[in-house]
Amino acid sequence: MPTIVVDVMPKAELLDPQGKAVAGALARMGVESFSGVRIGKRFELTVDGDVSDAVLDQVREIAADVLSNSVIEDVVGVEVVE
Amino acid sequence: MPTIVVDVMPKAELLDPQGKAVAGALARMGVESFSGVRIGKRFELTVDGDVSDAVLDQVREIAADVLSNSVIEDVVGVEVVE
Repeated sequence: MPTIVVDVMPKAELLDPQGKAVAGALARMGVESFSGVRIGKRFELTVDGDVSDAVLDQVREIAADVLSNSVIEDVVGVEVVE
Repeated sequence: MPTIVVDVMPKAELLDPQGKAVAGALARMGVESFSGVRIGKRFELTVDGDVSDAVLDQVREIAADVLSNSVIEDVVGVEVVE
């Protein structure tokens, strides 16, 4: 059955304490290649049947209204994955 | 600066209570198109400089050792996003 992946990230202008914690841990491990880490959520929705345009529109709506908090998060991706 | 996205999902055979809660909420909203929802994490690592093969290998190692718990999670994607 097809799967639709929805990616949600904290708004860029917001502090991301979890991301900072991971970045700090990497630095302490001597990993210097990265200047920042941000952590968001990845949703996999298994679709019953085919992925029509109507289903995709529905997912975009759900992503904005249910899967993310528009005050602090952005939906950064809605993608069909066979 | 280039960004590398690491996607981590709970192992397929594990119960995903958060995913079940979202699926239940969608059903109660009358949304019937989906047979399941699973929720994982999306990491965005901002790279200082270019993304060499060495940096990519390092990210795969970090993804397995630091960004995921191999007992309950799988790294399902490591992708360079310009």
